[in-house]
Amino acid sequence: MTGELKGNALVAQSGGPSAVINETLVGVIQECTRQGGIRKIFGARHGVAGIVNEDLVDLGAEREEQLEAVARTPSAALGSVRMKPTKDDCMRVFEVLRAHDVRYFFYIGGNDSAETAQIVQSLSDEARYEVRLFHVPKTIDNDLLVTDHTPGYGSAARFIACALAGDDLDNRALPGIKVNIIMGRHAGFLAAASILARREETDGPHLVYVPEVPFEIDRFVEDVGAVYDRIGRCTIAVSEGVHPAGGASLLESHDRDSHGNIQLSGTGALGDYLSNVLRTRLGGRHGEKIRVRGDTFGYLQRSFVGVVSRTDAREARLVGVEAVKAAASGAVEGSIALERVGGAQEYDVRTFVTPLESVARRTKTLPREFVNEAGNNIEESYRGYVAPLVGDLPEVGRLAMHRVRKKLHAR
Amino acid sequence: MTGELKGNALVAQSGGPSAVINETLVGVIQECTRQGGIRKIFGARHGVAGIVNEDLVDLGAEREEQLEAVARTPSAALGSVRMKPTKDDCMRVFEVLRAHDVRYFFYIGGNDSAETAQIVQSLSDEARYEVRLFHVPKTIDNDLLVTDHTPGYGSAARFIACALAGDDLDNRALPGIKVNIIMGRHAGFLAAASILARREETDGPHLVYVPEVPFEIDRFVEDVGAVYDRIGRCTIAVSEGVHPAGGASLLESHDRDSHGNIQLSGTGALGDYLSNVLRTRLGGRHGEKIRVRGDTFGYLQRSFVGVVSRTDAREARLVGVEAVKAAASGAVEGSIALERVGGAQEYDVRTFVTPLESVARRTKTLPREFVNEAGNNIEESYRGYVAPLVGDLPEVGRLAMHRVRKKLHAR
Repeated sequence: MTGELKGNALVAQSGGPSAVINETLVGVIQECTRQGGIRKIFGARHGVAGIVNEDLVDLGAEREEQLEAVARTPSAALGSVRMKPTKDDCMRVFEVLRAHDVRYFFYIGGNDSAETAQIVQSLSDEARYEVRLFHVPKTIDNDLLVTDHTPGYGSAARFIACALAGDDLDNRALPGIKVNIIMGRHAGFLAAASILARREETDGPHLVYVPEVPFEIDRFVEDVGAVYDRIGRCTIAVSEGVHPAGGASLLESHDRDSHGNIQLSGTGALGDYLSNVLRTRLGGRHGEKIRVRGDTFGYLQRSFVGVVSRTDAREARLVGVEAVKAAASGAVEGSIALERVGGAQEYDVRTFVTPLESVARRTKTLPREFVNEAGNNIEESYRGYVAPLVGDLPEVGRLAMHRVRKKLHAR
Repeated sequence: MTGELKGNALVAQSGGPSAVINETLVGVIQECTRQGGIRKIFGARHGVAGIVNEDLVDLGAEREEQLEAVARTPSAALGSVRMKPTKDDCMRVFEVLRAHDVRYFFYIGGNDSAETAQIVQSLSDEARYEVRLFHVPKTIDNDLLVTDHTPGYGSAARFIACALAGDDLDNRALPGIKVNIIMGRHAGFLAAASILARREETDGPHLVYVPEVPFEIDRFVEDVGAVYDRIGRCTIAVSEGVHPAGGASLLESHDRDSHGNIQLSGTGALGDYLSNVLRTRLGGRHGEKIRVRGDTFGYLQRSFVGVVSRTDAREARLVGVEAVKAAASGAVEGSIALERVGGAQEYDVRTFVTPLESVARRTKTLPREFVNEAGNNIEESYRGYVAPLVGDLPEVGRLAMHRVRKKLHAR
């Protein structure tokens, strides 16, 4: 505890947007205005790039009612960035903080953002400049350590559940094989959420593939063929990050971001590849033409207007508020984590502060216990974890289908 | 007018599903049970294929409350089909109708379905079997003749508007070039609906390409480059059916359906092709790496659970009810069309019956007046046509962004 620290606050957003990242932003802004020690609340446009360029805005001058509208709007309102700051960049960030008497820095983002906050922290320490540095979690991938789940995941998972529920109804109406590529480079949490679309026994997705389990194309074709033989159709959820054992990618790709990540979203390549393999090999095997389609959900998963989990929105606001409270009450650095409290019936969360180093750099993956032994599906136990984060889903009605006796001979 | 005709009714669904196709189905079922002359109401599973195979269900035995849940559920509850019936198939359809004393046939679908109904009609006439044959319009493409618009379009257009609004916010947060491929093989109505995402001057989509205007790849690259130079980013809506003058496809594709149509959805090929061209040619021109992404919205557009236009749902129910009323009151054949009544302020519709031949086979395209002269955007006048069909969209909140004066020298 270092006691009361007077000065300005700075908030920024980083990485891929989410449907509720602005709830967190607004939580930070509103709580900053409530705290006596915090004078001004600045926003940096496009994350650390905006700080480096001293591209700042005065968020205290925003109208309250407008902030509530911003909170309900997807995608980073301040602008975001995918930029790994160099040591020089971090030095510049520190200089900008000092020039504007920033004593509270809140960086909303994933593990990369926690790492940036950590580097700035060490520079501030060296310079003996007192600043409280907080990472506020956001990622649709749900891949941060320590926290039970990340704000942003629940809404993206809701999109996936609604998409797969509709997609499986579509596939039921016009039977065939349907491959759906879902975001998740290293972690299968989003693809796993697709099981929320299942309500009755023959509902899809019938197969789910996640990056945590080595992907074998022969096995994949076999799995799909077996489902198709059994029920005459197959709906499949595949994480974009699936790869063979050893880590090689299924595809060669041209685009890498500045963190060295291969571009997987914003291209239909994986879906088209898997669809073509299935079309060729299963179509040949059955001696019939099989209808195979592949959809890559792409950026709709993280920024679609109007699909938000209320729980997710509430928690995204909460972590923003709690980050400011923690900093104002004397914590020097940290990330806000969520802990699930209450039983299976009554879902609730509490927050706590975890050190930056506990969430920086590394990522969490889907626990193996949630994947079936064959590695091609998600256990029903995952429903208990994910359902409260997503909220109630729209009802799906079906016909009872009372068969009418035939009167003619079969043709 | 042929007066009262006692017998059974048969309803079936055909073609690509929509979010509200079951509203129409339930409208038909409920109105059939209200009509004294109609004894039983059968459903055929998977459209004309189900009739040919005598795969019928008794829809009068469905529970009323369950029907309301079915109405709110996307994708064809009876199952659908993409099958061009042969003359033999149509003969079989006629035999099945006669065997089950079907005197009222309601076929929910696009122009192909109207054509099928027409063929069955001529066979019935030859055999002097009295049956009233109705086509009930459904297509997200909005490409039927005569009617002001088709049930299914409003909900798909709503999906497009919400998707583009979010996508443009995403592109604003992480600037680059974003290509979005939208359904619409021959007609640009769905891509045109993307302009509903625009609320402020720099909002995307900044460019819209529809099949009604010849697509030139050089011109496309130039257009995108000009927007990118001006605002540092570009969001683009492209109909899947865009093609160069002369009708050749931009792509070679392997899959055709039984109507001879090339597979455009369920593959990311067009989006990837356009993205790669932009990345190569604009990236080279600017001597910088430009972030280019392509998403193909695919089947989500027609079957996503939870994105429905209330107006569309209401009208989809209405055309089902009105088809039964028309048939029961003596009309022998036809398709139900919508006519827009009331001024710009008070949107409302009335229905009327149009002959099957007026909607069969041919399709409607987006009137040229709605496309700008350059052929790369949609005029704001289209908003007046499409907005009432889509309904109110979620509010989008933005920060006022009061700039903070810089204190440091630029680096």
